[in-house]
Amino acid sequence: MQLTQALTRAVQIHPRKVGTICGDRSRTWGEIGDRVARLGAALRALEVKPGDRVAVLALNSDRYIELFFAINWAGAAIVPLNIRWAIPENVYALKDCEPSALIYDDEYAEAVAQLQQQHPVRCLIYMGDKAVPSGHQDYEALIRSTAPMENACGAKDELAFICYTGGTTGFPKGVMLSHTNVVYGLLNWIASYHHSDETVFLHASAYCHLAGAWPAMAVTMTGGRHVVLPKFQAETAFAAIEKHRVNHCLFVPTMINLLVHHPDFEKYDLSSVKDCIYGASPISDAVQTAVLAKLPTWKFIQGYGMTETSAVSLTMPWRYHFDGEDHKSKRLGTGRASFGVDIRIVDAQGKELPRGETGEIAIHGPQVMLGYWRNPEATAATIRDGWLFSGDAAWMDEDGFAYIVDRKKDMIISGGENVYSREVENAVSLHPAVLECAVIGIPDEKWGEAVHAVIVQKKGHRASAEDIIEHCHKWIAGYKCPRSVEFRDAMPVSTQGKLQKNLLRDPYWQGQRRAVT
Amino acid sequence: MQLTQALTRAVQIHPRKVGTICGDRSRTWGEIGDRVARLGAALRALEVKPGDRVAVLALNSDRYIELFFAINWAGAAIVPLNIRWAIPENVYALKDCEPSALIYDDEYAEAVAQLQQQHPVRCLIYMGDKAVPSGHQDYEALIRSTAPMENACGAKDELAFICYTGGTTGFPKGVMLSHTNVVYGLLNWIASYHHSDETVFLHASAYCHLAGAWPAMAVTMTGGRHVVLPKFQAETAFAAIEKHRVNHCLFVPTMINLLVHHPDFEKYDLSSVKDCIYGASPISDAVQTAVLAKLPTWKFIQGYGMTETSAVSLTMPWRYHFDGEDHKSKRLGTGRASFGVDIRIVDAQGKELPRGETGEIAIHGPQVMLGYWRNPEATAATIRDGWLFSGDAAWMDEDGFAYIVDRKKDMIISGGENVYSREVENAVSLHPAVLECAVIGIPDEKWGEAVHAVIVQKKGHRASAEDIIEHCHKWIAGYKCPRSVEFRDAMPVSTQGKLQKNLLRDPYWQGQRRAVT
Repeated sequence: MQLTQALTRAVQIHPRKVGTICGDRSRTWGEIGDRVARLGAALRALEVKPGDRVAVLALNSDRYIELFFAINWAGAAIVPLNIRWAIPENVYALKDCEPSALIYDDEYAEAVAQLQQQHPVRCLIYMGDKAVPSGHQDYEALIRSTAPMENACGAKDELAFICYTGGTTGFPKGVMLSHTNVVYGLLNWIASYHHSDETVFLHASAYCHLAGAWPAMAVTMTGGRHVVLPKFQAETAFAAIEKHRVNHCLFVPTMINLLVHHPDFEKYDLSSVKDCIYGASPISDAVQTAVLAKLPTWKFIQGYGMTETSAVSLTMPWRYHFDGEDHKSKRLGTGRASFGVDIRIVDAQGKELPRGETGEIAIHGPQVMLGYWRNPEATAATIRDGWLFSGDAAWMDEDGFAYIVDRKKDMIISGGENVYSREVENAVSLHPAVLECAVIGIPDEKWGEAVHAVIVQKKGHRASAEDIIEHCHKWIAGYKCPRSVEFRDAMPVSTQGKLQKNLLRDPYWQGQRRAVT
Repeated sequence: MQLTQALTRAVQIHPRKVGTICGDRSRTWGEIGDRVARLGAALRALEVKPGDRVAVLALNSDRYIELFFAINWAGAAIVPLNIRWAIPENVYALKDCEPSALIYDDEYAEAVAQLQQQHPVRCLIYMGDKAVPSGHQDYEALIRSTAPMENACGAKDELAFICYTGGTTGFPKGVMLSHTNVVYGLLNWIASYHHSDETVFLHASAYCHLAGAWPAMAVTMTGGRHVVLPKFQAETAFAAIEKHRVNHCLFVPTMINLLVHHPDFEKYDLSSVKDCIYGASPISDAVQTAVLAKLPTWKFIQGYGMTETSAVSLTMPWRYHFDGEDHKSKRLGTGRASFGVDIRIVDAQGKELPRGETGEIAIHGPQVMLGYWRNPEATAATIRDGWLFSGDAAWMDEDGFAYIVDRKKDMIISGGENVYSREVENAVSLHPAVLECAVIGIPDEKWGEAVHAVIVQKKGHRASAEDIIEHCHKWIAGYKCPRSVEFRDAMPVSTQGKLQKNLLRDPYWQGQRRAVT
């Protein structure tokens, strides 16, 4: 049970078929297999040892897909760094996981230069198409000049993957996934989303997130075909679907909304698409109506998962978005247990609650992570008796569908990105004028939710909203920064002194359903 | 990762849906879940302890499906005894695995009485619909009278399943499968055969074989529906497909052949079927032509697997049965690696052979059995360095499709050349007059063994032996072509539809010993 098996299968069953398409480049699975074995050897020659970590900071590309396998081929674990994070955040990740190499592309050349100043990584590999910076290794030259090596991938319970997630404590945590975790997650993905070697998958979600990385590996396991966009853009997505007869894709509802209302929508033939995975939030009534009318061949499947559970834990097939012969519409739900995954709604003691009662989603099965990298306390707090406590509050109906009512961790989902309010509060708090602050998600037509900061200023201070927002941009990624700021004289607190965020949030949501539900 | 998770998921997501239909009986997943928890408790009360084995000797039924889960619910492992075996063979199995209980139905009441004389099992549970024999427990009474217990299923690497396979050495061997083996096999099955909770599966293969047991567990995992036939019979299969709108099934080619040529074929609506799994042998030209004309909605998927690898290891989708845009027909093949399974063609030293060279199929992955029960020698001979050596001779083409040329023991040695009968059968089958054929080695003074073909012709066809031999010379090397041909009205087949080659071969070998044993 090894992550690399996904690739060796594709090479065995479809050696001459084009496996990756990225811009003008396309490569067969035979070529990709050969390149991965060479890259693995090159990493070894660069003293990447078995058990090491290798970080990647890059936009999506065909090469990035190779890296999922090449790094593991050399016996190391891949660490896809978050492409939206600010320098201090990724410095934290680098210091934490101590990679022996960092691989980057043109888009992040400048960021890498800054990272190097704060936490130098010994070996830098440039994966771009311009001139190779002095002292850095060149990705393509390494492939050309190194003979392929035998697969030296780790064993089933060894580390394959570390993915950093924004921490509720303000510090990122490295989710450790074993080969078993990942491979089981891939099989589950394939079975849940009906992939086969006929799958042509459009990648528009960043590979540093599970929504990008898992299809990159799962479609490889099927021997299908990847069509890779460096980032999401409606026009390029339209063109790629039409040109390459894409039949599977993944978009968050915000992207879907953008697509169906785009002025060029009618210009393209999008009828090759059969299945579209979505996640992060339920699909709104307006979007569902629009896709039914405008994308009749597309079947939407909702997926709920966490990096901590190697992607998909709950799924909702398209037919449950409507009333059926034997069921009512489950559209406000998040899906039900996917294959081989145990789901329970539990109380604070971990005891399963009756259907209809709200508790925390707990997840059990072979996909549950090894733990958080070098963080036994956080691991112990999250995995108890083999059950992973998701931090999401939900109830379950009589048909096993879960309905998320709140993120215990108080996450805001803005444009499909998870923003943890605590993390933003930490950044806001660093401003000298701030006495207290609370960050909430408020309704936003474009982003689903917008990050909104409520602030009590220190006496004698008079910071403006602009001051606060500008300050935050120095500390955290742009998408996490508040889009609006509200000043108050005091925070609403309970008699026990606990901040009552719901009193801040509720007035904004009168008559509306939060995207995060 | 527990076998019982398949059931708990079905109960969670489809509690009120009918899960099993058997004759006039139907039960919902909620009822089945409750019955299993009661049965598990009853087994415990009957002193079945964790780690024990519980044997079953019965025809297929809805109750048998419950047993896969109930025995494991109690923490024991299930041992489905072979329903076709003679008393001495099952006595051997009982002595070998020492079950603490034996569960049987009406069909095997007499056999169990005989087994008891030779190897008494302490606890006997009667699962029939007649009067309960004195001193035996009654299945339904146990369920009625016992309160349900919490799931006490074993852990991932613990024993879930022992299945006895006929040994070429003359002694049966008990294949030990862990929960991980089984669950991984189920996920692979679901992904390979496109099951979902919309699956309505017709069971016509005995549950003592993987072709019966794996869909029984896999379709449970999806929350689909089982339609159970006690045994295969064309009329009941037709009627069940039509009545219950069956959409998935599994038949061996001999059964398929029987179905499409049955006089009542036209009377039934069989168009609800979408996918039909088949195995044991490739589908002949005649059968393929017939199903294309008569069963246009059915897509046939070939599966190759062994009990030792928890079912499916190679699969061949329907489109590979024909020439396609990007491939030639692979119809004579057996499929290619299924998800997460490593397949190699290796020489006697276990070294991978180049494509096109014939060697032994070796299989690696999380599905490979724990070993043979109390038989470390046989285990060591079969699993080497984590690879399971199948005993099947095959070669692999450039697209990763394996072509089984024969079971090692079925090889014919003629004039010092190895002739694999399967390969000759494939060539013979391409003749338009051939409905069924079997190729065996018969004694020959000059060549040691001579290639001999036994053929059943299609109705209205009258090919001569010369026609057949001449035809074969177009497809395979001269030394592989039949030297003699025998025409018969029907093949000797088991009730499961499996060709009994020994009955063809034995008369020729009276008083002589074959070189290949």
